[in-house]
Amino acid sequence: MIRVVVVGHGNIGKHSVDAINNAPDMELAGIITRANENDGIEKYGKIDVALICKPTRLVEEYSKKFLEKGIHTVDSFDIHQDIVSLRKSLGEIGKANNSVSIIASGWDPGSDSVVRALLEAAAPIGITYTDFGPGMSMGHSVVVRSKEGVKDALSITIPLGTGVHRRMVYVQLEDGANFEEVKKLIKEDDYFKYDETHIIQTDNVQNLMDRGHGVKMTRKGISSAADNQLFNFEMRINNPALTAQIMVSCARACMKQTPGAYTMIEIPVANLLPGNLEDNIKRLV
Amino acid sequence: MIRVVVVGHGNIGKHSVDAINNAPDMELAGIITRANENDGIEKYGKIDVALICKPTRLVEEYSKKFLEKGIHTVDSFDIHQDIVSLRKSLGEIGKANNSVSIIASGWDPGSDSVVRALLEAAAPIGITYTDFGPGMSMGHSVVVRSKEGVKDALSITIPLGTGVHRRMVYVQLEDGANFEEVKKLIKEDDYFKYDETHIIQTDNVQNLMDRGHGVKMTRKGISSAADNQLFNFEMRINNPALTAQIMVSCARACMKQTPGAYTMIEIPVANLLPGNLEDNIKRLV
Repeated sequence: MIRVVVVGHGNIGKHSVDAINNAPDMELAGIITRANENDGIEKYGKIDVALICKPTRLVEEYSKKFLEKGIHTVDSFDIHQDIVSLRKSLGEIGKANNSVSIIASGWDPGSDSVVRALLEAAAPIGITYTDFGPGMSMGHSVVVRSKEGVKDALSITIPLGTGVHRRMVYVQLEDGANFEEVKKLIKEDDYFKYDETHIIQTDNVQNLMDRGHGVKMTRKGISSAADNQLFNFEMRINNPALTAQIMVSCARACMKQTPGAYTMIEIPVANLLPGNLEDNIKRLV
Repeated sequence: MIRVVVVGHGNIGKHSVDAINNAPDMELAGIITRANENDGIEKYGKIDVALICKPTRLVEEYSKKFLEKGIHTVDSFDIHQDIVSLRKSLGEIGKANNSVSIIASGWDPGSDSVVRALLEAAAPIGITYTDFGPGMSMGHSVVVRSKEGVKDALSITIPLGTGVHRRMVYVQLEDGANFEEVKKLIKEDDYFKYDETHIIQTDNVQNLMDRGHGVKMTRKGISSAADNQLFNFEMRINNPALTAQIMVSCARACMKQTPGAYTMIEIPVANLLPGNLEDNIKRLV
């Protein structure tokens, strides 16, 4: 059995516990929350993999702690432009400590990245568009919640087609907070400044919360010398549930990689699955 | 540069030549046809990979010849239930001769297999349906053409939903052939005997030939403890062009595997792509 600790007990952490409990080859070794994170990890016994279910901006710090102890890590780091540098930094620590880190392992980045790479291999010349939503972006919502004056927040991603998105941000303010100042903080953030962003004040964000999300990825391109090859990948999903499930599947793949850090496109998809490889080939190939 | 020979010069062989010529990191070392296959391969210089563009039932025999010489092979073997045994047989030869074979590397089996495995990792409990067509099945058409009394043939796959298919087979007979006998030979073949098959006699099969094809793969399943996760993958493609392109992308991946035989689900998708890995991660992850 692969023994896994869940680090963080928010949306993704809670769903990860379910995914581990449903996995035939895994055991939940423990849940590490802010309340008990300084207790020492000896009490959890042998730990194979730590799932870092923390906000993206804390991923590197938490991952390092485990990798240095020889424990593999999986995260769903989602700042696309910083993935290469996270891979380098965690890869060095992994190689030095005989541990594996699978990074950016949600659905985008993550499983969508695998599909994007596959479609490029299938039609090397062409354009892929990834349209997200409509749905709640957890990463963007966390960022808004971290702003001074914000009590609660929800950021919804609206697909405008050809990879262009609108952000609809619903904020519930702390008493005495200034809406105009909060708006400015949000619009200046890297997560928002490149997109059309509408910020709406509301009394109760929780009444708007639905964690469904979706994606539509299209590629039109050339295979060999044939134009007009058309590909379309769509999903409608519970966002934290899918993120957690993919992280848990990647925890399994950690056990098969040599030390270092990897994105999902560097991992054979067969290694994400439980069971005997030949049986999986028979069923899936 | 990766030097590739194309073995066979039918539909897939011809498209493979185009795909190799379009690849920034490959060189066509030669085309081996029935007319020149006994000439000896020394004249092609160094060969890294042989693309076996032969009917499925000849794949094992041709692949072995190259693997034994230390030359990697890629094929688009498409009899799903025999893939595990082909992998075993070619894997042993590859390991003994320091060569790599990537097998069943078309779109189904092939790129569809990667998507099927990925969706199972994303939602481990649930059902995937793969619906093919409407479109010409090259494998099935080749099988019909191999029957006694058949001058030319076309087998079209019609999706009936939930993975059930109808086969519409158009046959042009040799002079003096008996249609009822030809029908019997086709219906008894493993390629046809499990599906609803209609066989229609026609004067000129070439007038019906359009090599477009398609697939629609759906999965509805559970991620973590969330039901109703919905996934949909569709494509509309020129069939031999896509098969050839994927084989050529797999030729590249051969260079990164340790000796043995692999299906596409055992290969990181990143290895299918040309260019620098970090640049590909930046663009695709």
